[in-house]
Amino acid sequence: MTTIDLCVIGAGRIGRIHAANLARHPEANLRYVVDVDADSARRLAAETAAEAVSVEHALADEAVDAVVIASSTDTHLPLIEACAAAGKAVFCEKPLDLAVDRAYRCVQAASAAGVPLAVGFNRRYDPSFRRLRDEIAAGRLGSVEVVSITSRDPAPPPLDYVRRSGGLFRDMTIHDLDMARWLLGAEPEWVFAAGGSLVDPAIEAAGDIDTAAIILQTGNGAVCQITNSRRCSYGYDQRIEVFGSRGLARADNDTPTRVEIASGDGFLREPALPFFLERYSQAYRLEIDDFLRAVRDESHRLAGGEDGVRALLLAEAAAQSLATGARVRPAPYPRT
Amino acid sequence: MTTIDLCVIGAGRIGRIHAANLARHPEANLRYVVDVDADSARRLAAETAAEAVSVEHALADEAVDAVVIASSTDTHLPLIEACAAAGKAVFCEKPLDLAVDRAYRCVQAASAAGVPLAVGFNRRYDPSFRRLRDEIAAGRLGSVEVVSITSRDPAPPPLDYVRRSGGLFRDMTIHDLDMARWLLGAEPEWVFAAGGSLVDPAIEAAGDIDTAAIILQTGNGAVCQITNSRRCSYGYDQRIEVFGSRGLARADNDTPTRVEIASGDGFLREPALPFFLERYSQAYRLEIDDFLRAVRDESHRLAGGEDGVRALLLAEAAAQSLATGARVRPAPYPRT
Amino acid sequence: MTTIDLCVIGAGRIGRIHAANLARHPEANLRYVVDVDADSARRLAAETAAEAVSVEHALADEAVDAVVIASSTDTHLPLIEACAAAGKAVFCEKPLDLAVDRAYRCVQAASAAGVPLAVGFNRRYDPSFRRLRDEIAAGRLGSVEVVSITSRDPAPPPLDYVRRSGGLFRDMTIHDLDMARWLLGAEPEWVFAAGGSLVDPAIEAAGDIDTAAIILQTGNGAVCQITNSRRCSYGYDQRIEVFGSRGLARADNDTPTRVEIASGDGFLREPALPFFLERYSQAYRLEIDDFLRAVRDESHRLAGGEDGVRALLLAEAAAQSLATGARVRPAPYPRT
Amino acid sequence: MTTIDLCVIGAGRIGRIHAANLARHPEANLRYVVDVDADSARRLAAETAAEAVSVEHALADEAVDAVVIASSTDTHLPLIEACAAAGKAVFCEKPLDLAVDRAYRCVQAASAAGVPLAVGFNRRYDPSFRRLRDEIAAGRLGSVEVVSITSRDPAPPPLDYVRRSGGLFRDMTIHDLDMARWLLGAEPEWVFAAGGSLVDPAIEAAGDIDTAAIILQTGNGAVCQITNSRRCSYGYDQRIEVFGSRGLARADNDTPTRVEIASGDGFLREPALPFFLERYSQAYRLEIDDFLRAVRDESHRLAGGEDGVRALLLAEAAAQSLATGARVRPAPYPRT
Repeated sequence: MTTIDLCVIGAGRIGRIHAANLARHPEANLRYVVDVDADSARRLAAETAAEAVSVEHALADEAVDAVVIASSTDTHLPLIEACAAAGKAVFCEKPLDLAVDRAYRCVQAASAAGVPLAVGFNRRYDPSFRRLRDEIAAGRLGSVEVVSITSRDPAPPPLDYVRRSGGLFRDMTIHDLDMARWLLGAEPEWVFAAGGSLVDPAIEAAGDIDTAAIILQTGNGAVCQITNSRRCSYGYDQRIEVFGSRGLARADNDTPTRVEIASGDGFLREPALPFFLERYSQAYRLEIDDFLRAVRDESHRLAGGEDGVRALLLAEAAAQSLATGARVRPAPYPRT
Repeated sequence: MTTIDLCVIGAGRIGRIHAANLARHPEANLRYVVDVDADSARRLAAETAAEAVSVEHALADEAVDAVVIASSTDTHLPLIEACAAAGKAVFCEKPLDLAVDRAYRCVQAASAAGVPLAVGFNRRYDPSFRRLRDEIAAGRLGSVEVVSITSRDPAPPPLDYVRRSGGLFRDMTIHDLDMARWLLGAEPEWVFAAGGSLVDPAIEAAGDIDTAAIILQTGNGAVCQITNSRRCSYGYDQRIEVFGSRGLARADNDTPTRVEIASGDGFLREPALPFFLERYSQAYRLEIDDFLRAVRDESHRLAGGEDGVRALLLAEAAAQSLATGARVRPAPYPRT
Repeated sequence: MTTIDLCVIGAGRIGRIHAANLARHPEANLRYVVDVDADSARRLAAETAAEAVSVEHALADEAVDAVVIASSTDTHLPLIEACAAAGKAVFCEKPLDLAVDRAYRCVQAASAAGVPLAVGFNRRYDPSFRRLRDEIAAGRLGSVEVVSITSRDPAPPPLDYVRRSGGLFRDMTIHDLDMARWLLGAEPEWVFAAGGSLVDPAIEAAGDIDTAAIILQTGNGAVCQITNSRRCSYGYDQRIEVFGSRGLARADNDTPTRVEIASGDGFLREPALPFFLERYSQAYRLEIDDFLRAVRDESHRLAGGEDGVRALLLAEAAAQSLATGARVRPAPYPRT
Repeated sequence: MTTIDLCVIGAGRIGRIHAANLARHPEANLRYVVDVDADSARRLAAETAAEAVSVEHALADEAVDAVVIASSTDTHLPLIEACAAAGKAVFCEKPLDLAVDRAYRCVQAASAAGVPLAVGFNRRYDPSFRRLRDEIAAGRLGSVEVVSITSRDPAPPPLDYVRRSGGLFRDMTIHDLDMARWLLGAEPEWVFAAGGSLVDPAIEAAGDIDTAAIILQTGNGAVCQITNSRRCSYGYDQRIEVFGSRGLARADNDTPTRVEIASGDGFLREPALPFFLERYSQAYRLEIDDFLRAVRDESHRLAGGEDGVRALLLAEAAAQSLATGARVRPAPYPRT
């Protein structure tokens, strides 16, 4: 099996995960690391036996097969366009962009160039959530009637991140909206969203919310409920239940160990894994595996650009629902 | 402690539970049983060492302190009025009535006569749900932000019951709406409801739904989510999660035993208790205890008539929301 | 169905449970209560609508079908002999006696008189432990290879009780030894016991131990492990695992509710039910049901006198093993 | 931090795990792979970017700092002696040898040469079992009174492996005996062992057993129970409970995901991870980390040679106890 040569753009928290996974991957050769901050790039390059270069240098190298984009959201579109022009396969962190039209241009660029475009919906690779999907696919739950998603971050992000994030729905809920589509197996016909700022008034002052409850319904009547919070005392709360005509499948949180302590207070298990780096560590490896498979085999189906756009359309509908108090039909998928 | 003399009206499924609990209660004397079907009344009277009589006979007996009403919903109002006129304390099964104005007349009748009126919101007496409320009251969860209620019946009721039931929201969800009020500790400002008929098309033909998802929000931004189904393969699914600023409390289903079987298929626990008679058997005893306490001590606070009316107002708002697709502010509590 | 008339002898903790269960039982008529302390007898009689009388009076009454003996262990033999002579069926709390020969005389007395003799091995009626046995009987575990019993009291009994108790093995372990026989489905060929006084040196000074580990093995090679302690911070720890060639069945502790609290400390469930009154409340009702069935139907098989003697033989072997450090073959069942 | 250069001897199942972990380790450089089967050596070398060489070649290379020995048990002693003579630090899979005197010569060789000698007691690095030890060390359990170890392989090994294995106690139980010492924090004063061949008569014919129950007791009265089987339908059953004066800590099995499926059969979780490669994958990484730390820092304390000898002494005592039916005091640790 030939090795795939890659460049990672963005040496932040997520970029470092992808770089480390690629550096250890038997079928990958991490050739370049790119970051606007030269020091960060150099440090990550040193840790992963790669070279810190400019985007231009990396894209000009014909040996590079694929690029992993983990830089700031506003850079995604120009980078995807440049990668596509250079014929590189692209893995891009979510969201493709905060605006639907720009996100769709990402998809168009990859499509026109005939390169794979993967979007970093890591939860599709979480073994527990994947098992839910497998149970549905195997028909063991019957027809899916209700999907219930609980998704809570341990603490709010910094306020300047909140301001640039596009809001809770585009930043955080977008993962849950993708899960909703993936598990319902159909497009929601409408979205209803409620919420508020219960965690920190500064988030409200920044024009955002930190607590939300959302309902989506598909054409066949199946519904999905989502509950979100930017605060959670017991770890990163990431649970999904799928209720079908024949039964229920539920994915619980993971904990660091399987130990339980019994005392006069009762039986105590550990808090959930603290945040996404821990909870989704295996998912990050599996999604890179999957991307490498797609680079090698064009027919391989990815969580791709269209999924990124469709989740964004749902996030936009949620924002509009929150503003109006009514349920909102998502805008149609763009057609050129 | 003096014994309280009672009459049970209605010898159906619920009436029989209350009669059996009263027959065994050290502080109660079940004197009379009433039912429109004389045979049912006689059988239940025989089992409980009571006497089968007419309503008039029972209410005319000055020794009777209190009446438990478990007859069909349409009889609640005239029976409560008659009991109140006779100065008897009343425990009435939910719903007081399918119509708000008539339900409110029940409250007025009891209030005018100065007799206690309890409504059979049995879940308030379930030890697990009560513990959730105790955790909130003790401040261990901080401020309540999200209440999530899962409530699924094992199978749909007969169609003729569906037709007389007032619809899913008034018949089944009303319990969850009462839990929402009880755990949120504040009145919802609006209700949003979605749903459909996924279990049985005959339910749709009868003008009702069998699957629902509901969101309520209070003035301080706290939300409650409810998911309902008239079908559940793994028993009677009755779970509640209360998420607060300091943590989460969740009440899981109960099972017949604590046994787990491990084999090549995995680790198998028993299905949840099959239905309300099993799940709420202890709650039925505790709510009768509580009613007897109120009969003895007028200052004792009950799940009372006002709670019955308020839950009905929320059910009406849910029905209107389902019809319109918009969130609906519940009608105000009636004032004479 | 004709009602069975009973007398309860012993108005202590266990006698009061049996009396209360009989007072509420639709097929029982608790006619008499007997206790050496007249006040205790009168109080219990008043609570259960029975009459406080002497043993002689109760046994002389031909209407009395059966007697429940819950008095001190040394009175069991003379009382059983008197009951048998009077033709009354007998339910006797464990142990029949601290000495094997006297315990066997209890069995002989009942047998000679042709009256049923039940021994209060309440755990056989615990729904979880009974389910283990049902799984074995149904063949779902294959052949039983290992039974593991965890049995811990929340706190040591008073020292004067310890001194009269016959020692840990005869007093506490005897229940576990009965479970071992019941679940192994065969008689142990030998017993090995280890232990010590880790909880309280006063227990050692009284000639007893408070912590024990025991192994028994049957002729077909199946083993049973028992672990005992007189101290347990997290409630009354009563668990059994049955490991068979096809799988495992395990019965966990029960807790007051199904609530779990999540906070920064983790996920906390309640301590186990505090002690035997709570854990085995349902078992106490079911064992009385079973006894009444046997009173009515002579062919009904009980946890009977022979079981009481055999468990005592194992306890004696355990005591001898602890003293010698070697494994000990239990003495054979007495034959007259 | 300077990189540590290593050689792995033995390209079988365990050798491959260590080689793969070293190949990915940022602080290790896997230089050589050795195996008596040249093809196996070459294949593993190719996968790990190492070179397949002879033992002599590897030990003669001064750049090699440390050797990981995962070859057959009978080769351990000569290899450790050769490594020690060459001044290489040694990690050796358990057991050091099947005979105590030869195992002790391993320790002496390393000690005389002043090189670290680690023994592959992987369970000490399992995060759940390590947490038990941390709880003990932190005093949260009080004084340790009972350790209960459940350890069951999914299926018996091939018969020719059984014949060479030294018997169940030296081959399989040795891990549990090490856990016993590690968690009791004291040396057992005696061992009692029972068992038989319940899984496969061919194992008995080969002079071994497949099912065992063991008790150990330390001088302060604390006991450890071990239950072993060579068959387990629900995965690799590896659980430990530590009961102390203040509470209980228990480590449960791990499962592939956190998913539970509910249906009419009940609530089904997945079987335990299938065998040691899956269950202890993280432990294998952590034990190599720890070994590298010891190579770098001579004062670092390892699960070392003495632990290997002491576990073997307990296994010998267990074998003698099984043969005699009496409890057996382990032979003293050899002193030269």
